[in-house]
Amino acid sequence: RGWIIQTYDGAQGWILVFLIGIVTACFAASVDIAAEWGYDLKEGYCTTSFRLNRNFCCAHKNINGEECEEWKSWSQAFQIDNNADMFNFFSYVFVASSTQQVVKPKRKQLKPYAAGSGIPEVKTILSGFVIRGFLGIRTLWVKALSLAMVVSAGMTLGKEGPFVHIACCIGNILSRLFHKYNKNEGKRRGIISAAAAAGVSVAFAAPIGGVLFSLEEVSYYFPSKTLSRSFFCAIVAAVSLKLINPFGTGKIVMFQVSYDKDWHTFEIVSFLILGILGGLFGALLCKLIILYTKYVRNRSWLKKWPVVEVMMVVIITASVNYWNRYTKMSSTDLVYDLFSECKGENDHKGLCVNSPEEMFDVFCLLGLALISKFLTCVFTFGVRTPAGIFIPSLLIGACFGRMLGIAIQYLTMTHPDFPIFAAVCNQNKDNDCVIPGVYAMVGAAASLAGVTRMTVSLTVIMFELTGALTYVLPIMTAIIISKWVADGIVKHGIYELLIDLVGHPFLNSNEEYVEATTTLELCQRDLEVIDVKDPNTIGELKVKLKVLGKSMSGYSDAGFPIVDDSILVGYIASTELEHAINSLHSSDDTIRCCFKEPPFDSESVNFTVYTDQAPLTVSQNASLEVVLEMFKKLGLRYIIVVNCGQYVGVIHKKRLLGYLRQLEGKKDDDFIRE
Amino acid sequence: RGWIIQTYDGAQGWILVFLIGIVTACFAASVDIAAEWGYDLKEGYCTTSFRLNRNFCCAHKNINGEECEEWKSWSQAFQIDNNADMFNFFSYVFVASSTQQVVKPKRKQLKPYAAGSGIPEVKTILSGFVIRGFLGIRTLWVKALSLAMVVSAGMTLGKEGPFVHIACCIGNILSRLFHKYNKNEGKRRGIISAAAAAGVSVAFAAPIGGVLFSLEEVSYYFPSKTLSRSFFCAIVAAVSLKLINPFGTGKIVMFQVSYDKDWHTFEIVSFLILGILGGLFGALLCKLIILYTKYVRNRSWLKKWPVVEVMMVVIITASVNYWNRYTKMSSTDLVYDLFSECKGENDHKGLCVNSPEEMFDVFCLLGLALISKFLTCVFTFGVRTPAGIFIPSLLIGACFGRMLGIAIQYLTMTHPDFPIFAAVCNQNKDNDCVIPGVYAMVGAAASLAGVTRMTVSLTVIMFELTGALTYVLPIMTAIIISKWVADGIVKHGIYELLIDLVGHPFLNSNEEYVEATTTLELCQRDLEVIDVKDPNTIGELKVKLKVLGKSMSGYSDAGFPIVDDSILVGYIASTELEHAINSLHSSDDTIRCCFKEPPFDSESVNFTVYTDQAPLTVSQNASLEVVLEMFKKLGLRYIIVVNCGQYVGVIHKKRLLGYLRQLEGKKDDDFIRE
Repeated sequence: RGWIIQTYDGAQGWILVFLIGIVTACFAASVDIAAEWGYDLKEGYCTTSFRLNRNFCCAHKNINGEECEEWKSWSQAFQIDNNADMFNFFSYVFVASSTQQVVKPKRKQLKPYAAGSGIPEVKTILSGFVIRGFLGIRTLWVKALSLAMVVSAGMTLGKEGPFVHIACCIGNILSRLFHKYNKNEGKRRGIISAAAAAGVSVAFAAPIGGVLFSLEEVSYYFPSKTLSRSFFCAIVAAVSLKLINPFGTGKIVMFQVSYDKDWHTFEIVSFLILGILGGLFGALLCKLIILYTKYVRNRSWLKKWPVVEVMMVVIITASVNYWNRYTKMSSTDLVYDLFSECKGENDHKGLCVNSPEEMFDVFCLLGLALISKFLTCVFTFGVRTPAGIFIPSLLIGACFGRMLGIAIQYLTMTHPDFPIFAAVCNQNKDNDCVIPGVYAMVGAAASLAGVTRMTVSLTVIMFELTGALTYVLPIMTAIIISKWVADGIVKHGIYELLIDLVGHPFLNSNEEYVEATTTLELCQRDLEVIDVKDPNTIGELKVKLKVLGKSMSGYSDAGFPIVDDSILVGYIASTELEHAINSLHSSDDTIRCCFKEPPFDSESVNFTVYTDQAPLTVSQNASLEVVLEMFKKLGLRYIIVVNCGQYVGVIHKKRLLGYLRQLEGKKDDDFIRE
Repeated sequence: RGWIIQTYDGAQGWILVFLIGIVTACFAASVDIAAEWGYDLKEGYCTTSFRLNRNFCCAHKNINGEECEEWKSWSQAFQIDNNADMFNFFSYVFVASSTQQVVKPKRKQLKPYAAGSGIPEVKTILSGFVIRGFLGIRTLWVKALSLAMVVSAGMTLGKEGPFVHIACCIGNILSRLFHKYNKNEGKRRGIISAAAAAGVSVAFAAPIGGVLFSLEEVSYYFPSKTLSRSFFCAIVAAVSLKLINPFGTGKIVMFQVSYDKDWHTFEIVSFLILGILGGLFGALLCKLIILYTKYVRNRSWLKKWPVVEVMMVVIITASVNYWNRYTKMSSTDLVYDLFSECKGENDHKGLCVNSPEEMFDVFCLLGLALISKFLTCVFTFGVRTPAGIFIPSLLIGACFGRMLGIAIQYLTMTHPDFPIFAAVCNQNKDNDCVIPGVYAMVGAAASLAGVTRMTVSLTVIMFELTGALTYVLPIMTAIIISKWVADGIVKHGIYELLIDLVGHPFLNSNEEYVEATTTLELCQRDLEVIDVKDPNTIGELKVKLKVLGKSMSGYSDAGFPIVDDSILVGYIASTELEHAINSLHSSDDTIRCCFKEPPFDSESVNFTVYTDQAPLTVSQNASLEVVLEMFKKLGLRYIIVVNCGQYVGVIHKKRLLGYLRQLEGKKDDDFIRE
């Protein structure tokens, strides 16, 4: 018997992440199917069954080759022959914006939570802060529904961030089924970390990348147990999604490429350039998004009318995208074509060209696509819809990468006698010396590195997205260069910038802060304390709470140190004290409360259970470095400063953060204020 | 000016890891070249130049196809026609053991450090313990030299562990060039973590796997800064090695495979079986190695004659391996052939067979190879030579994997009408339904997972070794199953078991311990203390030190709490106190010492600088969980227990570990004692 109970207890975590993996895969598949159907609906519909998207509708045909009769574009459906283009354009915009209409009323109920990528908030939650309802059931439904709609509207945004958020909601909700995880905050955070891995795993069919993303970007603590749980969760999610097979292709690698050539040594220079470009674009994107949100969106009428903003963005995006054959495609299709090598008959939407003149046209079209995608991304990321930054970043990077590739291909064709090219390319056919698809892939990796500052997880994700193992060294090089360049321009990645913008209490565990003060100076010494020698009637305590509430308006996690003649004996959080007073159900303000065992008389109420009897303390001589380490690594919310056993003061996390921000302000705010 | 200094300060770390990457690649290339040459020397020599190994000697020939005339086997060289086999055998054993003879005198000087894989010790060092000279220059040379020799002797061991150790030595030595890293222990550990990544990166040409190995298996703390440094270090090492190109092949993927088929659903069962087998073999290997080391090697004459043991193992290994065509190959070649798919004309040393009868022969030969490799691995791992466990584990896994693959292929051929096979295999040619190479690969991953209990890093390493992205889900599944099975049999991986065996103070940061006691009970309350009110003459202090030395024989990091009337004011480590007393250069035992500012009179010596004036404290009411967290996450060596500011006692890391081992003992020691 005991053995069974013990095994079940040990297996609970595994069962839980197993369920999370499966449920996440189901949600992802539903969103994928709905989004694909909605996306195709903009251009036409399936005559055999309205529910089918283009791919399934024409499943028995070779789509690239012959026309599919079952699929009718809107102009065909309404039998408009003249101005078919114009009609198609308006129906495109109409459907795009009407999918947005459907999402509106839903979003209103729970607006702020379903918006954005969700990753900054998940990061904050995993670092120990509580955001009520952010990972609840309603958030889950609203996010999933609205995600499907915005993706089908063809906005410039990805679904990996929202998928991570959805997976974390599922993780949080399913944790409630298991007492062990429902009760223990820390254990639940481990489960949410694992769920985040499943989110990326289903978004990109990249299970290992998902685990590493959770480790490198999302999680705060990541012990080995969480690592293997995340690993398992990501496998289950990936296998489930493969079995559900929402796209009907059975593929696990999203942008599979099969470059059959290794890279030439001279190309290292190009990869370095791509790294630098990626860093520049990434940092610029971060900067513009933050500036736009801070100064335009939050300070104009847009703030009051988020729904109007969404509509405008959708209409503008749809209008701009329609006229360029590359932006009209769905983002993932475009990325796939940009990554592709020109082989065989498939010309990948005109990307494969052989004459220098045609190259120039494609180069210009891609340049236009780059600019429009970049600008719409700035306006889009931050509107009140679910939005991920991965696919737009990849797209931007793939565009400039392919452009550089084409430019170099152009050079090799027009100047075949240039020493470097002559040495390497002569034995090949003339347009076969460099593969522009490789440049697109490396550029995409660099651009994403510039935006998010990920390194290892990004390499693995690129790897799993494309399967291009031969190019792992160029990709890694471009990523690290891009990270350096971007770090030099804007210090943090997009997620940290967003956390900062919203003002969540997130103590970056990876940063080293300069120490310009001492522990003693940092701590608050003028805090009200509760002295156990005092009478401490309910009335007095209420007054203290009121005073604290006023003076510490922002510090919701404040509290009172409990001292006995200036010797520290405990700590009580203000919320706990309020709860304790309310639970008395008595309006008699003269009742005396006791905060230390044994109670001094039998009439007083014992509040000892509400206190923290062993708060963590540091000596006032301790270096600030030690204090920071304790906050970071132990996830504390406050620490009490003592001197030889005597109470001195308290350092709260929020106060510490405020101080650190102030320190950084001199350097960092410069660019934000500009 | 200030800007330049600041930039240089920030760039130091990057420059350092850059150098480490390059130097590591050079060492690895030298070892590889030397080992390959020595390996081939066992069979023959190059007539054009004695310095060349077989590959370079016959570089212009197609080795598989025609005979290479420049390369002569020993029997040819001495023109012995009869009994050529016998003669080849003896020269094989002779050369194998004579390479060992060369290594002997070298190893004697610094025996214990160059032995083994080095990973357990590196782990211990990174967790905060100091092992003097383990990462020094002499260890580096001895390890590199002896590694080249044992690999060329053809012993059943890999070079990844020693490479990690060599890289860590390089990291430690080069750190001395930079004041910032030479001074700060913590920062240097970050650099050593990065170096470990470079070690795996050059051992397997697996840069990402290296970073993850360092993260998952080797390092104790791994902040984001270390992550990007490791990433950079691993790239530099991999690129340098690719440019040096020691094997002359220019390949970056070690066991490149190109399976052109996806897996069938029914094969999931096989992969599960492989996972279980991997777990069983892995756990068994761990168990036997530890048991053999503990009860046979350490308790018999072998302990006194390690060199004789090495000789014996070499001779036995060489004799056993010579008679089986699979074990006679170098381990890496064999793994490569086992992973390969049967395509085209290459029959991969007879592994590709088409008739059921031949299959049985191959099956038996592989079985023999499996048994002999497994047994020699048990005897070899732990002898006083550099030794890695990766390649042997992969080899064992690949053997049983390929055996299972062949068995299933046999079934599909003899029972083609069996429902499952009929449904899936009919359309293919009869021997084309399952790929035994895939089974070998999955089996290898599972076996290595059973031995080391790695998950994510192992998947990525397998991935980088083979490039088989399509099979990432089977590999992941087998790895997690194997880990579960192995965890069920032996709780820890081989590295933890070895740390435990040697008795290093390693507090596993990933483990959760059951709490069976309280903080108050665990702390030592009978320790001598230094009361600042006492006279504290040198004579008295010497007596205290002597008493401490006796009572705490094992606890080299013990010390004295400093109290002022039972109020804690500081802590002084016994080594510091000794150092302070010695630095007085006075034999006058009546000098009084002062441990707290301000000194009570002008005659006494001020020892305040030697004390820790802000030791970390916990309340005696604190739960043991909090205490453990602090030890793990803050890397403490002691913590002082107080009660309302009054000194209560001290908890030392070694005492804590002893207690935890005792707790575990009831469960874990069972199998060791058996």
